[in-house]
Amino acid sequence: MTVHAKQEKPAARIQKGMPSAPQKYQPYPQIDLSDRTWPSRRIEKAPIWCSVDLRDGNQALVDPMGHDRKERMFKLLLDMGFPEIEIGFPSASQTDFDFARWCVEQGNVPSDVSLQVLVQCRPELITRTFEALEGAHRPIVHFYNSTSELQRRVVFQKDVRGIKEIATDAAKMIMDMASKAGGGADSYRFQYSPESFTGTELEVALEICNAVAEIVKPTADNKLIINLPSTVEMSTPNIYADQIEWMCRNLDNRENLIISLHPHNDRGTGIAATELGLMAGADRVEGTLFGNGERTGNVDVVTLALNMFTQGVDPELDCSDIERMKAVYEYSNQMTIAERHPYVGELVYTAFSGSHQDAINKGMKAIKVANKPLWEVPYLPIDPKDVGRTYEAIIRINSQSGKGGIAYILQEDYGLNLPKKLQVEFREDIQRITDEEGKELPSRRIYDRFMERYVGQPGSRLSFVDHHTYADGSVKGRRIVAAEITDGGETKRIEGKGTGPVDGFVDALNKYLGIEMTVADYSEHSMQHGSNAAAICYMEMEHGGRTIFGVGVNQNIVAASLEAIVSAANRIIDRSGDAG
Amino acid sequence: MTVHAKQEKPAARIQKGMPSAPQKYQPYPQIDLSDRTWPSRRIEKAPIWCSVDLRDGNQALVDPMGHDRKERMFKLLLDMGFPEIEIGFPSASQTDFDFARWCVEQGNVPSDVSLQVLVQCRPELITRTFEALEGAHRPIVHFYNSTSELQRRVVFQKDVRGIKEIATDAAKMIMDMASKAGGGADSYRFQYSPESFTGTELEVALEICNAVAEIVKPTADNKLIINLPSTVEMSTPNIYADQIEWMCRNLDNRENLIISLHPHNDRGTGIAATELGLMAGADRVEGTLFGNGERTGNVDVVTLALNMFTQGVDPELDCSDIERMKAVYEYSNQMTIAERHPYVGELVYTAFSGSHQDAINKGMKAIKVANKPLWEVPYLPIDPKDVGRTYEAIIRINSQSGKGGIAYILQEDYGLNLPKKLQVEFREDIQRITDEEGKELPSRRIYDRFMERYVGQPGSRLSFVDHHTYADGSVKGRRIVAAEITDGGETKRIEGKGTGPVDGFVDALNKYLGIEMTVADYSEHSMQHGSNAAAICYMEMEHGGRTIFGVGVNQNIVAASLEAIVSAANRIIDRSGDAG
Repeated sequence: MTVHAKQEKPAARIQKGMPSAPQKYQPYPQIDLSDRTWPSRRIEKAPIWCSVDLRDGNQALVDPMGHDRKERMFKLLLDMGFPEIEIGFPSASQTDFDFARWCVEQGNVPSDVSLQVLVQCRPELITRTFEALEGAHRPIVHFYNSTSELQRRVVFQKDVRGIKEIATDAAKMIMDMASKAGGGADSYRFQYSPESFTGTELEVALEICNAVAEIVKPTADNKLIINLPSTVEMSTPNIYADQIEWMCRNLDNRENLIISLHPHNDRGTGIAATELGLMAGADRVEGTLFGNGERTGNVDVVTLALNMFTQGVDPELDCSDIERMKAVYEYSNQMTIAERHPYVGELVYTAFSGSHQDAINKGMKAIKVANKPLWEVPYLPIDPKDVGRTYEAIIRINSQSGKGGIAYILQEDYGLNLPKKLQVEFREDIQRITDEEGKELPSRRIYDRFMERYVGQPGSRLSFVDHHTYADGSVKGRRIVAAEITDGGETKRIEGKGTGPVDGFVDALNKYLGIEMTVADYSEHSMQHGSNAAAICYMEMEHGGRTIFGVGVNQNIVAASLEAIVSAANRIIDRSGDAG
Repeated sequence: MTVHAKQEKPAARIQKGMPSAPQKYQPYPQIDLSDRTWPSRRIEKAPIWCSVDLRDGNQALVDPMGHDRKERMFKLLLDMGFPEIEIGFPSASQTDFDFARWCVEQGNVPSDVSLQVLVQCRPELITRTFEALEGAHRPIVHFYNSTSELQRRVVFQKDVRGIKEIATDAAKMIMDMASKAGGGADSYRFQYSPESFTGTELEVALEICNAVAEIVKPTADNKLIINLPSTVEMSTPNIYADQIEWMCRNLDNRENLIISLHPHNDRGTGIAATELGLMAGADRVEGTLFGNGERTGNVDVVTLALNMFTQGVDPELDCSDIERMKAVYEYSNQMTIAERHPYVGELVYTAFSGSHQDAINKGMKAIKVANKPLWEVPYLPIDPKDVGRTYEAIIRINSQSGKGGIAYILQEDYGLNLPKKLQVEFREDIQRITDEEGKELPSRRIYDRFMERYVGQPGSRLSFVDHHTYADGSVKGRRIVAAEITDGGETKRIEGKGTGPVDGFVDALNKYLGIEMTVADYSEHSMQHGSNAAAICYMEMEHGGRTIFGVGVNQNIVAASLEAIVSAANRIIDRSGDAG
């Protein structure tokens, strides 16, 4: 066998390359824990869930939530059954303070739900925080300071003792103010986070957490939450699990503590770090719906919960209406969810390949025959119905294959922004051609086909030539449209009335053709591509209970819209033979 | 402390809830491997990377790639330095066959790169596959069959022996045909996948893989790739690692095998499963750029590579131009990448919180002072420059906070599709108000402000009243536009010439005002919200080297566009005082 000559010329590689990894970056240190037990454990019950959507999630938004968006998110979190909800940083902004007050006074918070607020270790902020919580039922006061080696050195320029003092001073002040606030210290719960825990030496984190606990004096009835954030995810997830197991073993009075995880996702392993961390002994998880949050996000609690669910573990979080959760996520965060996001993405219940579809069908039949509740379907790790999705999606998306793609090509390569419904209509046409020819069409042929079908329309009866409008003296605001068209090559003059050229022209054409079409929707934009600054107009017309599109291109925006109407009319009379 | 009365009424919970998890789903069995070694290992070198973008990725697309999209992806994969690239399933479709031929004949494949093709264990497909590979340099023939307990039972209705025979029969036939094909069997490399490995009992997978290897007879010089796919991700990632370590220990002649991982991401832990699998002894990874692929996707090789890079390990994959990678991903797959996707998402190098920004600044200063190559910056686990991103992004996105949000509100609540540049222009206006008032504006106020500023324009000099166009007898295609406007309340008649009402009216207004403005861009659509079917027109005008938007709303589409021009003119003369 000879190697083809062309293969010997290597392809051009990216020239600049990347810097030397070993010089610029260091491996994360391993944990000395050869007797770790977590790899042989499994998750057998749900952790205590705490949503931080309204705090960590919100602070990472391009456009942070106002009251409406927060309220909608808050109601969803309550409906899902979160027992703990961090609602903000009330001492840091008036918006957060006001929202905390709204939650306490009007939030309809069930008595088994604790509101949680964040506060930095600073006196004036702590005062304000207690004001924000007045009247709340056993809220959680969450205080934190950065403890990582890097932040001690470059941000705070303090040694471990100085950093520990920040934490213990705050703990003292918070305990003091809590006992002065209505109800006494027992009315509050407390949480301490050594922020940037994953950048902190374990011994240092341990020393600071133990010092804080010594001041808070937690009991089995009022445990202190020790939250160990992976503020930045810095290692493979097994190391985070080692750290959690190490902390669980070494913290004083473990029985009076709730060990909480707060993973971020910088390495794309936030879910795994949380799962292994729970196996390593943690009791609680802070995260957000679908993983919104700083940079790459907080850990996604929905995926965590459904991962447990599909292992037969009650997730203690109601994810049965994932479409509502997605809608609120998109509304409140104003972000979108990727097509392949586990459990919720548009494409995750879709099988495109024939062999997958076949196996799924056989699996579903087998379940019906077996008549047992057990879910066993190849390629579908969860029954879509359990989260409010449907099997139909598998077929629907598949049979519409190509809509997005065609719209993308026309947009990217030719600057055409087709309305959604026109995308669907035109896709069917392309699908027919693709099916006939057995392969995908190149971009140029899709464009040519579009222009031919909607604009050029070779062989069609009508074409637009010109128009004039003038005021109808008899009715104020009414215009008369006089237009010239050709019908089978013969020039015709038609006339109609309306508030503007569009409805006037539609009126003229309806009378001329003896049909009844009306404008359903309309959009028009200048064309970026091509030699002249033409406008393209998309007219969605209604006729006989159906909608049909016409498209016009002209340097004159009115002419473009009237051409679009003629284009639709041609397609109506070609189909129906009405006026043929 | 008293609990607020309203708290005692529990919020309405979602009624339907979820089915009982323990009845419907079973926990994935654990692996008996108490002496596992992977948790104490680390990743110290890059695996052999194999891209499956053009096969597993492509087959999961709503609109599969045609030649152009494939070619662009293929060139990127070569440029990044992938040593192995799966280019399709040539026996399954003509498109894939043609692309394989193109790669071999015109793909400029360097001699150290192996093309790989997939084939099912069926005779006629195997013949066709060898035709597709003729002339390729040491290509990999990748054959597979499903081996999982569930698929054996419900899809194939065969016992282990029958399923093993499918694999060994195929192996025999492939070896036979390879030795007959030009160059002999040594010119080819071979890969076998027990598909749905994670659903297969380890002993069964082992038996089948050993049986295949016995036929292929791999050597240290021509190793057999045993690919162990997590076709569906079914367990926490530590269990996949246990499975890989178990297989590595138990396979015959391990030294003649390359153990390959092919993880999917159904539980959101594909990256972690791969990392732990590499620690468990695997040599090779199959995955896709940014994790495109069936359902929740294949494992994302870019994140894996950059995870290694940030641990000081040379990833042996050039990710220095992540923006190009993103662009090709979006072009070729016609999918988008989420804002929080590790290393590449729009928001991952952005810090919104003041304390994070402060720490980042201090970290960057400390690096400059230290004058060492080591990257140590809080909240930024990688130097954005290493992948072709910039620090500017942090500021840019931050200072534009709100653009997306405002556009979303106007679109969702009021049906207005603002052009991008107008979004930017208007956002600045809203930002000013937000800054003055210190809080976010409600949706209604944003809409009102938009309509006031661009449409109503109280106190502005000009307003549009009416227009007529008629043909200019002296020049063909030229029209004269005669319009009525008011200027400071006084009616004025103006006249201009052009190919249509828009440029004719601009001409008229320019002459009247003594300015020079031109149309830069234009879009118009019907308004879905509101009582009448008015059109809204956005005109981007150029004046004195700057662009400025005007907006018009009218039932008559021409009037809407002329109003938009007057709106822009008002904004120009208000600013410049030109014609004041």
